[in-house]
Amino acid sequence: MSAVNRTNHPEAEEFMRASMTDSAHDIEHVYRVLNYACDIAKHENGVDTKLLTIACLLHDIGRSAQFADPNIDHALFGAEKAYAWLLENGYSEDFSAAVQHCIKSHRFRSSSPPNTLEAKILYDADKLEVCGAVGIARTLLYCAHVSVPLYSFGKNGEISDGSNDKEASFFQEYKFKLEKMYDKLYTTRGAELAAKRKSAAKLFYDSLLLETLECYGAI
Amino acid sequence: MSAVNRTNHPEAEEFMRASMTDSAHDIEHVYRVLNYACDIAKHENGVDTKLLTIACLLHDIGRSAQFADPNIDHALFGAEKAYAWLLENGYSEDFSAAVQHCIKSHRFRSSSPPNTLEAKILYDADKLEVCGAVGIARTLLYCAHVSVPLYSFGKNGEISDGSNDKEASFFQEYKFKLEKMYDKLYTTRGAELAAKRKSAAKLFYDSLLLETLECYGAI
Repeated sequence: MSAVNRTNHPEAEEFMRASMTDSAHDIEHVYRVLNYACDIAKHENGVDTKLLTIACLLHDIGRSAQFADPNIDHALFGAEKAYAWLLENGYSEDFSAAVQHCIKSHRFRSSSPPNTLEAKILYDADKLEVCGAVGIARTLLYCAHVSVPLYSFGKNGEISDGSNDKEASFFQEYKFKLEKMYDKLYTTRGAELAAKRKSAAKLFYDSLLLETLECYGAI
Repeated sequence: MSAVNRTNHPEAEEFMRASMTDSAHDIEHVYRVLNYACDIAKHENGVDTKLLTIACLLHDIGRSAQFADPNIDHALFGAEKAYAWLLENGYSEDFSAAVQHCIKSHRFRSSSPPNTLEAKILYDADKLEVCGAVGIARTLLYCAHVSVPLYSFGKNGEISDGSNDKEASFFQEYKFKLEKMYDKLYTTRGAELAAKRKSAAKLFYDSLLLETLECYGAI
């Protein structure tokens, strides 16, 4: 199924497919983001569906560049790459710039917040991908890709729960990012979908921490 | 902490550390297996603790070879590697052969089942690592390492839950292996520890499946 186009923009889909790399940001991540965005869009008025669709399809085309060089911001890089591709492929300057803004502002840690309805929807749709069990799964896939362990140890050899960690770990990512995502969404529908998933992620984190502490005889 | 020896067998620990590679089978996996094995051993009579400790430390030293060439069985390869290393390092023929048997028979899919107490304990301790939230986390890390997706699609483009899948995926691994692990253990204590963790793994699988089906509009 993954090789078949699913929108009315096959060229953009093909360009996206050629740009995706790691399994935490694979083709299905892009289609899930598109599906969430369409769901959210149904609850909003005046959404430019074509703009939103193209922005969703191309939002992570800068990932491979950031993966190869961690100093590159995939949102900024992808925004420029998308803008250039859209102009080359006959899209208008205004449309291309609007997609560019959506992609530039979709990152959680971005210094450029979304300021259009479509950019806010893409932001929320992408953040739903770090919520719930899907968010846990994708974070673990990413930990493997960048060789980050499940947990790190404190000064006295105790397993850290991630709260005050300086070393990167799955627990740190959960406490610093995943846990805090649920109240950072822009749209009502996005927040509603996120809230439904919060307990699945928390249950997993709690279970993993408990099992690990038990295993090392800490409780 | 991970660079510090934690047993009375520092040479075996150093040999183990030099042999570990991917993050699903990292150094902490080995120490968790050792911790579980010590826990199980307390509930059994007549365990050879030195044999069990060395077998735990060296049980996955064949992983990097299997990772480089999937036709290699890491249990068979690691058993031979451990046997040779032990003889070279002054351990007796009987002891080295006993460790060899433990390592050879620790694999879930092995055609050589464990037939000594220490081999059964290592088997159970290693299987606890695919139970519960830890088992889910390690399976996801491994999926990333071998580029296996979260799910695959059926003939009509529907997301498959893993039950009848021919394509490798996280869902397939859960249905074919993880879900079936809990009643395959040899020791009473191993089975008891596994049973405590079953619901955390099931809840995660159920949540991930539900979220994914909802996202694609299948429910």
